[in-house]
Amino acid sequence: MGMNILIAHGGGPTAVINCSLQGAVEAARSSGRVDKIYAARFGAEGILTGDLIDLTDVPAGTIARLGRTPASAIGSCRRKLTDADYPTVLETLKKFGIGAFFYNGGNDSMDTCHKVSELAKREGLDLRVMGIPKTMDNDLVLTDHCPGFGSAARFAAISASELALDASGLPIHVVVTEYMGRNAGWVTAASAMAARLTNCQVLTYLPELPVDEDKMLSDIESAWAKGQGLLVTVSEGLRGLDGKPLADTGIVDGFGHVIPGGTAQHVTDAIIQKLHIKSRAEKPGLLGRAAIPYASPVDREEAYAAGRYAVNAALRGESGYMVSIRAERTPVYSSSMELVPLAEVANAEKTFPLEWVQDGNRVADAFFDYALSLIGGELPQYAILR
Amino acid sequence: MGMNILIAHGGGPTAVINCSLQGAVEAARSSGRVDKIYAARFGAEGILTGDLIDLTDVPAGTIARLGRTPASAIGSCRRKLTDADYPTVLETLKKFGIGAFFYNGGNDSMDTCHKVSELAKREGLDLRVMGIPKTMDNDLVLTDHCPGFGSAARFAAISASELALDASGLPIHVVVTEYMGRNAGWVTAASAMAARLTNCQVLTYLPELPVDEDKMLSDIESAWAKGQGLLVTVSEGLRGLDGKPLADTGIVDGFGHVIPGGTAQHVTDAIIQKLHIKSRAEKPGLLGRAAIPYASPVDREEAYAAGRYAVNAALRGESGYMVSIRAERTPVYSSSMELVPLAEVANAEKTFPLEWVQDGNRVADAFFDYALSLIGGELPQYAILR
Repeated sequence: MGMNILIAHGGGPTAVINCSLQGAVEAARSSGRVDKIYAARFGAEGILTGDLIDLTDVPAGTIARLGRTPASAIGSCRRKLTDADYPTVLETLKKFGIGAFFYNGGNDSMDTCHKVSELAKREGLDLRVMGIPKTMDNDLVLTDHCPGFGSAARFAAISASELALDASGLPIHVVVTEYMGRNAGWVTAASAMAARLTNCQVLTYLPELPVDEDKMLSDIESAWAKGQGLLVTVSEGLRGLDGKPLADTGIVDGFGHVIPGGTAQHVTDAIIQKLHIKSRAEKPGLLGRAAIPYASPVDREEAYAAGRYAVNAALRGESGYMVSIRAERTPVYSSSMELVPLAEVANAEKTFPLEWVQDGNRVADAFFDYALSLIGGELPQYAILR
Repeated sequence: MGMNILIAHGGGPTAVINCSLQGAVEAARSSGRVDKIYAARFGAEGILTGDLIDLTDVPAGTIARLGRTPASAIGSCRRKLTDADYPTVLETLKKFGIGAFFYNGGNDSMDTCHKVSELAKREGLDLRVMGIPKTMDNDLVLTDHCPGFGSAARFAAISASELALDASGLPIHVVVTEYMGRNAGWVTAASAMAARLTNCQVLTYLPELPVDEDKMLSDIESAWAKGQGLLVTVSEGLRGLDGKPLADTGIVDGFGHVIPGGTAQHVTDAIIQKLHIKSRAEKPGLLGRAAIPYASPVDREEAYAAGRYAVNAALRGESGYMVSIRAERTPVYSSSMELVPLAEVANAEKTFPLEWVQDGNRVADAFFDYALSLIGGELPQYAILR
């Protein structure tokens, strides 16, 4: 007789979070040691209300389609569990006879995961707890990178290339585009790849490096003056010298974070009003984490592998760990999974190395040495005739 | 001895405008009857200044890559030629010994094309003139549809599906997304496809149908109340009952024109302020015409075929026509090219049939009967577990 397992998603989805779900479900099925496979409907919300989806008998063809399904197929939420919630969590785990719990998420989720693990130990519950990493922001520590990042980076690199070509083929305005990332510039940095893929002019601004808006505008003016069109890519969390986001919505989310946004529009307005140059702002927004046609093949495989690895590790008795990716880049890229203690991951944040930013708006080769294999797959080769 | 030809792009590009260029160049090469293949650098600007790109000896491999290159690979412009410009145009045509001129564009370009054709006739110039249709807006008359539309529609249909899944998997806000189309709702209508592909709630608003903003908000409130998340798709040109665009940025550009746009942000602001519901606005913007990973295979093939057809028709002596697409939808989709007189195409506009809009915010089956084969290729099949 086997055990029952529960999988939950936490926070914002990525283009490949369902690949991890697919990997976990398929590993559980092929192990022959799992009775019931449950998923929490809408993450922590479903755990607290006991609203679980029974995936045990979902057809294999549907599970296989998870690999090409964006967003969270089982639902997620932004609710951060408080100490008062944990007894209810344990109640649900007991009620459904859960022997292994998998939380697929970022920093906040790994913190939750760690607390559930500790609490279960204290209560003497026979529960194995495993974190599966997920964040397009790439800001988890103790892992070379996070599943979800490669696809978001591929989206940023290729979409910025497409916008740069548009901006230079019809150079009637400065195009400013905003990419997701409140505190971490990893994804926006990937948009700087557009300069390499297209030979167009691209200026990139990351949230880790506060900008002097006057200097930013004067750099934009100089680049525009070359007459070959210009793409400016900015992170949604871009800050001014006072440390405050250039553009805030003023809205606070469930984790207490202020939702930034409108940064591209803010920069565009300044270009029009102060430089008297035509400009337009784009904000692909959530598409940056949901656009399946841009998903990185490497990222999809690793996300799937992370889900499988978590289930297999739990089945052999491991608990209290997050799956981590170890990567080798020479002679060719390869990666493998390992386990790192949840306690060391929870709430730590990996920011973008500032030494990888040049002149305030260009990204150094070192970043691409790191990221190119994660962006993965064939990169587009454009016909450049102009 | 053969003739020299000149190809120019007019107005905004599409995801497949370079497919037409590829088709035209390859047809010219394989005919054995063309000496020099010129392209105007930046469209009308290049014609007026005599700045042409010589494509005659560009390697075949580069020409082949045009099929996957977004934006205009030879450059385009928004300059509309005036009567005073036409003598200069003829001068350039004579100087480079052009025997056939191809203008790849939308309404304005077909008007220009027609005028060049008439003028050449009056001047006794041995010039063949051919229009190649191009517009993501799909608003040219006398053709079943326009090259460029299928890809923009595929982008709208699939990106809206991805956003709808994101909005329903983490239902913490109403997601409002803006698609291109100032006067024509064809592309935004395709975003309504998301409701079919995902089973999520999608409300769609087109520029042809002025909206009562109070009614719009009350419809959004009711849909949101169902608790399954909500995607609202709006055309950038959406108008209120007074006939004015809902959102003008209010910003005047360097040319004294008010900059339109921000419709999604306008609706989002109203949702937050009047309904007190969290909302976020997305604006993929130019990506809607540049995103190669979403390009429709049918659209790519037809755009290529239109370029070939134009060159071959000119070489056999035709002049004064636009290439038009005739389509059959039963028993299966097929299309063929034919010629329609430029005079009948110039400056006419095909708007979205209002009878295809239901309840002000849903799109009727009749539109999908028309558009589905143009969106083309396999449509995504998502795993729906919630």
